[in-house]
Amino acid sequence: MSGQHFLFVPGPTTVPQDIMNAISAPMEDHRSLAFPELTHCVLDDLKEVFKTKSGRAFVFPASGTGGWEIALTNTLSPGDTVIASRIGHFSNLWINMCKRLGLEVIELEAEWGEAAPIERYQEQLAMDRNHRIKAALICHNETSTGVTSDVAGLRRAIDDEGHSAMLLVDGVSSIASIDFNMDAWGVDFAVACSQKGFMLPAGLAITCASEKALNAFQKKTRTPRAYFRLQDMIEANDTGYFPFTPSLPMLRGLRASLRRLLDEGLDNVFARHHRLAGGVRRGIRDGWGLDLCARQQGTKSDTVSAIMMPDGFDSNEVIRLAQLKYNLALGAGLSKVSGRLYRIGHLGDLNELMLCAALSGAEMAMRDIGIDVTPGSAVAAASEYWRSDKQ
Amino acid sequence: MSGQHFLFVPGPTTVPQDIMNAISAPMEDHRSLAFPELTHCVLDDLKEVFKTKSGRAFVFPASGTGGWEIALTNTLSPGDTVIASRIGHFSNLWINMCKRLGLEVIELEAEWGEAAPIERYQEQLAMDRNHRIKAALICHNETSTGVTSDVAGLRRAIDDEGHSAMLLVDGVSSIASIDFNMDAWGVDFAVACSQKGFMLPAGLAITCASEKALNAFQKKTRTPRAYFRLQDMIEANDTGYFPFTPSLPMLRGLRASLRRLLDEGLDNVFARHHRLAGGVRRGIRDGWGLDLCARQQGTKSDTVSAIMMPDGFDSNEVIRLAQLKYNLALGAGLSKVSGRLYRIGHLGDLNELMLCAALSGAEMAMRDIGIDVTPGSAVAAASEYWRSDKQ
Amino acid sequence: MSGQHFLFVPGPTTVPQDIMNAISAPMEDHRSLAFPELTHCVLDDLKEVFKTKSGRAFVFPASGTGGWEIALTNTLSPGDTVIASRIGHFSNLWINMCKRLGLEVIELEAEWGEAAPIERYQEQLAMDRNHRIKAALICHNETSTGVTSDVAGLRRAIDDEGHSAMLLVDGVSSIASIDFNMDAWGVDFAVACSQKGFMLPAGLAITCASEKALNAFQKKTRTPRAYFRLQDMIEANDTGYFPFTPSLPMLRGLRASLRRLLDEGLDNVFARHHRLAGGVRRGIRDGWGLDLCARQQGTKSDTVSAIMMPDGFDSNEVIRLAQLKYNLALGAGLSKVSGRLYRIGHLGDLNELMLCAALSGAEMAMRDIGIDVTPGSAVAAASEYWRSDKQ
Amino acid sequence: MSGQHFLFVPGPTTVPQDIMNAISAPMEDHRSLAFPELTHCVLDDLKEVFKTKSGRAFVFPASGTGGWEIALTNTLSPGDTVIASRIGHFSNLWINMCKRLGLEVIELEAEWGEAAPIERYQEQLAMDRNHRIKAALICHNETSTGVTSDVAGLRRAIDDEGHSAMLLVDGVSSIASIDFNMDAWGVDFAVACSQKGFMLPAGLAITCASEKALNAFQKKTRTPRAYFRLQDMIEANDTGYFPFTPSLPMLRGLRASLRRLLDEGLDNVFARHHRLAGGVRRGIRDGWGLDLCARQQGTKSDTVSAIMMPDGFDSNEVIRLAQLKYNLALGAGLSKVSGRLYRIGHLGDLNELMLCAALSGAEMAMRDIGIDVTPGSAVAAASEYWRSDKQ
Repeated sequence: MSGQHFLFVPGPTTVPQDIMNAISAPMEDHRSLAFPELTHCVLDDLKEVFKTKSGRAFVFPASGTGGWEIALTNTLSPGDTVIASRIGHFSNLWINMCKRLGLEVIELEAEWGEAAPIERYQEQLAMDRNHRIKAALICHNETSTGVTSDVAGLRRAIDDEGHSAMLLVDGVSSIASIDFNMDAWGVDFAVACSQKGFMLPAGLAITCASEKALNAFQKKTRTPRAYFRLQDMIEANDTGYFPFTPSLPMLRGLRASLRRLLDEGLDNVFARHHRLAGGVRRGIRDGWGLDLCARQQGTKSDTVSAIMMPDGFDSNEVIRLAQLKYNLALGAGLSKVSGRLYRIGHLGDLNELMLCAALSGAEMAMRDIGIDVTPGSAVAAASEYWRSDKQ
Repeated sequence: MSGQHFLFVPGPTTVPQDIMNAISAPMEDHRSLAFPELTHCVLDDLKEVFKTKSGRAFVFPASGTGGWEIALTNTLSPGDTVIASRIGHFSNLWINMCKRLGLEVIELEAEWGEAAPIERYQEQLAMDRNHRIKAALICHNETSTGVTSDVAGLRRAIDDEGHSAMLLVDGVSSIASIDFNMDAWGVDFAVACSQKGFMLPAGLAITCASEKALNAFQKKTRTPRAYFRLQDMIEANDTGYFPFTPSLPMLRGLRASLRRLLDEGLDNVFARHHRLAGGVRRGIRDGWGLDLCARQQGTKSDTVSAIMMPDGFDSNEVIRLAQLKYNLALGAGLSKVSGRLYRIGHLGDLNELMLCAALSGAEMAMRDIGIDVTPGSAVAAASEYWRSDKQ
Repeated sequence: MSGQHFLFVPGPTTVPQDIMNAISAPMEDHRSLAFPELTHCVLDDLKEVFKTKSGRAFVFPASGTGGWEIALTNTLSPGDTVIASRIGHFSNLWINMCKRLGLEVIELEAEWGEAAPIERYQEQLAMDRNHRIKAALICHNETSTGVTSDVAGLRRAIDDEGHSAMLLVDGVSSIASIDFNMDAWGVDFAVACSQKGFMLPAGLAITCASEKALNAFQKKTRTPRAYFRLQDMIEANDTGYFPFTPSLPMLRGLRASLRRLLDEGLDNVFARHHRLAGGVRRGIRDGWGLDLCARQQGTKSDTVSAIMMPDGFDSNEVIRLAQLKYNLALGAGLSKVSGRLYRIGHLGDLNELMLCAALSGAEMAMRDIGIDVTPGSAVAAASEYWRSDKQ
Repeated sequence: MSGQHFLFVPGPTTVPQDIMNAISAPMEDHRSLAFPELTHCVLDDLKEVFKTKSGRAFVFPASGTGGWEIALTNTLSPGDTVIASRIGHFSNLWINMCKRLGLEVIELEAEWGEAAPIERYQEQLAMDRNHRIKAALICHNETSTGVTSDVAGLRRAIDDEGHSAMLLVDGVSSIASIDFNMDAWGVDFAVACSQKGFMLPAGLAITCASEKALNAFQKKTRTPRAYFRLQDMIEANDTGYFPFTPSLPMLRGLRASLRRLLDEGLDNVFARHHRLAGGVRRGIRDGWGLDLCARQQGTKSDTVSAIMMPDGFDSNEVIRLAQLKYNLALGAGLSKVSGRLYRIGHLGDLNELMLCAALSGAEMAMRDIGIDVTPGSAVAAASEYWRSDKQ
């Protein structure tokens, strides 16, 4: 196909040229005298992104799924109880993993499109007099539904009940794009990965653990693990190295990514995501007259919008035509919402015109299958919003 | 600025990744045993693009301006007379060059926005009983106004008068994007360059000479020249080499470009440009209600559209805001139309959504300075056209 | 430092340009319609490299250490017994991992520099009447000592005793460089990774399991695991996808790597490594008069040579000067041989002159600290060998 | 062929990764508001490299041959007389160009391998009472013979005779590698190009003109020229732009190159070239016992060594085998020394081990055709020199 490919799945996101240059530099020895400078630079800058002073960041060659496992196996032991909510595909998968790793899960069911039900977490914690619940799990930004949940609220709920549970957060599609504050929110383990807000290819699980998680929990965990064992990583990282061969291109890419994020300023990064998302939402609602999967105000994600299909239309057909006719990759509805929604990722290295292209292509594909949206309407609504908002 | 840069000047155009990879491969010896394979491959494939069997293609490290000089200095001598029309910035510059090189020019004036006046060429040729006119010069696609002229018609005019004049063509923004037929049209010298339809960076003058130009004219030219002397190039190319160090990255890039063009098929390339341009024109006319600089039907360029500003508005301000606010590069109005039009290039490696982005950005910038175009209207008109037209 | 960096650690190896181009191509959706073609192509070609028809290849975002864990946790359960030999740093680490994962290990101690003691494995297997031993582990090429062991011999030993133990092989620094034959040697699980013979950066654990390992063992394993759970990978791979976001750059790089390996022909790849290693060994022995760590004839590795220091000299000082003065990265002596040897990796995309550079740099660094080797002697011996041997 | 290609022709030289990254960045509009910053940065830094305060630097898409033409056609008119010496292939070609452009040339013949005969220039200038000679041409570093001539000496000779001739210098293979001082040496026009010491691909003619050349000569030149007309370039450059589309990748590459050169420090760059060349010369003389084409002490080039073949051996055969068997590109003997010498370029981004590889490969190829040089001898002599000399 001619022309550029427009990638609007909610990760992997487009990799900027300077990061790709860092990635594609020639190999080096990961045991060289110079190597520790890279290790320390990356791990220190990551703490700024996680907004933690006392926590500790970790980088593993793995996917975000590996990041979940790092969080669970280094803080919990088989038989431990955790509490978690089922609000979408990825929160479900994390719960499934808990079970595979031998954890007991108190599951809070909710409609897809709802945020994590903080009050119901609190009810359960209140009832848990013996602090059997070792950790509360929450998905900060459920990528399958485009819903952002209230992590700080969950911490308040835990604290309100005087509960000792750790707070473990899936921040895969929020961290580095939406405000996240490890220390202020009392997060004990946060999981991110490379291919979202960090603007890198997939391949790195990026996590951060609180002092409490490392000292009180990690040291007594009985879960067998080797590759993902944090203690080995801590000991090696302290010397500037890794316990096994790290992915040099990804570490260099991460350094370049962190430099970009910190140069732009995290608050500016968040504001940019919020502003761009605002235009997309106006395009969907005011332009096309379509609904988001996210229901409540204040929970609509700044990194991904899940667009509900009108009755009788199959979102997979929209996605297929967008790909084949317009060189546009949209995100599919996953598992139980397959066919019922498609997703536009709006995170990472992005601007207004890229989103105009995405909205135009999605609109053309929807019209191709007979959905009656007004031509140009999403671009009109989004662009007028951006114009009004842009100084 | 965040996100990708949208480059919509009518050259340089966006370089596709595979071509950039070819360009950035490690250096090699240009006198190696393997080198001739590259030379011959490029020069042979170029003949297919120029659509010539008997002509000969040349590649020089130079800009398109250098290409004009190659055409003039290798076929004409100081004091020779040529005929040419002034229909825009680039046809003017070529005429200026003729004068600097000591040629006499019969100049045909026309309004910018008009095509080259074939009938007036014919009148002059008819009057030139002694064949004092050695060459007729024409700009196939005047990039400053977005006007395509009738090269085949000029050849017919020459032949109708039984005139011996050569036909020299500036095909800088047409060749490899709009149909061009060296042999069928009896073109004696065609000038192209790398940064337009060939999807390469600037740096190569790509020209093609007819047998007649080489045999009857080149050999007796008295213009002093060295770097651009074709005879040296011919002798070196015949052995597979160059008379001076060639730009290896650009030759490799050109090979990759030619492979793309011939793999897609020239007719498909032309049809794609025509189809994409059709959408842009509908966006401008039916969406925004604005005029093109190109006046006559059938002369509106498939590679660049020059959009006239409504009275009271400065196109340079549109361009400035598009750049600063929307990361979009539009083409300026050059010399006497500065401020009165801006240009959108639509050539090279391009698709619908890239143009939706460009139209959206131009629209936002126009609205920012108060031009009353309807939001989303250009995308609406263009995208409906492309949808209807796309199989 | 000026000029190119010479990377001669035994992994990561130099990434050829075409592979790096594949790695640095723009991102795509890993759930697209086109994606399965990449998945199937890579997994099918991998089977050719592992030389298996009935086995199954797997690619995980992980390091080689992750590959070990994949092999162990998908075939064995806590409490199971395995037999393994300690012949160097990496075979030791694998044994340590076994223990962490709750396995019982029958450990065969040997001097570093020795190959895996096949006869002692056989003795133990012979004594194990009840087939308590579930698997025999062997390091095909111990990277820390430059010793290649007899995998086929270990299979024969198992079979000679009529034992049911699986054969698990660390082929990290052998596969794709030294002959390895999954099916012929009856290997049940083979572990490789991206940054050695595959000429990629680190980041992928590349493994292959036999039908028996998958059917008889994998399905009943009780080791808790999620990220590395093969059953999920099998189900997703069968549809052409992955159970979590794969590293697109690395998959594309792996496809390019496999194309290179199969285009060159595996036998030619092995012969090239053998021939280049032969020159290096002659340089070390006949040129410098130094010993390899590898003792026995027939066990000297074709991918890495570990060079013993004369008494009184510290190999870390050689490595430090090679790095700082000559832009050359040599491999260090690991754990108990730290300071006593340094290593030259000779695997991947390599040729004679690259090795001449490495030998020259190592020689200069050795002379700098006073080791009395004759200037030019290693290059002399190696180059004469290569000349005589080259057709 | 496996492994890296070793490029040791005296240009093009190896392009460092950071420069290649600059070259392969996405295209931009060359008429944008931001563009002048690039233009001014490059032209200002170039003046530092040419060591001129009052001169003016120019960058054209062209080869070095184009640079010669820029120098001649912008300072001289047809019929003017110049004086020049024939001391090798490139000085010959420049003289040929003079003749083609209608200049009269007083030619000083010398043996290839000799430096430019300053005293004979002076004799001629002394006899030229009427100052008919408008310019003295000299090749600072004759690339075909590896001989450096005394530019400052020629200026002294001109001044000693109170002559008004301009001093035009071919610095193609010296500038940015060997000390060159435009102002101190009273050079009026210096010609360089991108693919030598600037570590870029071929494609840019880089020149510098003195105030006198521009004011007293350029303004009255009668040579017809357009593409290479400096006055247009001056006017456009003054505004930060170019009179025709510049090669953006090469300008960006040049900026990166200049940053490297000035960061390393010109004196350090020159010292590094001198030191590396010293090792190569010792390898050739003390190791192999072969002669350089350069005869006199003090004229042996720090950027290229031309190695004379013993009687009965054909250098083209050495070059052919080096290419085919060892992936090494050596420079050929040009025109009348074809077969009698081969050349090793030692300029640009280079270090000791790269040269060890080159010397090893040349040695192997020489031994392959039966030249009796001692194996390892060049590496031995060179590396011992570098070791002794390295702090």
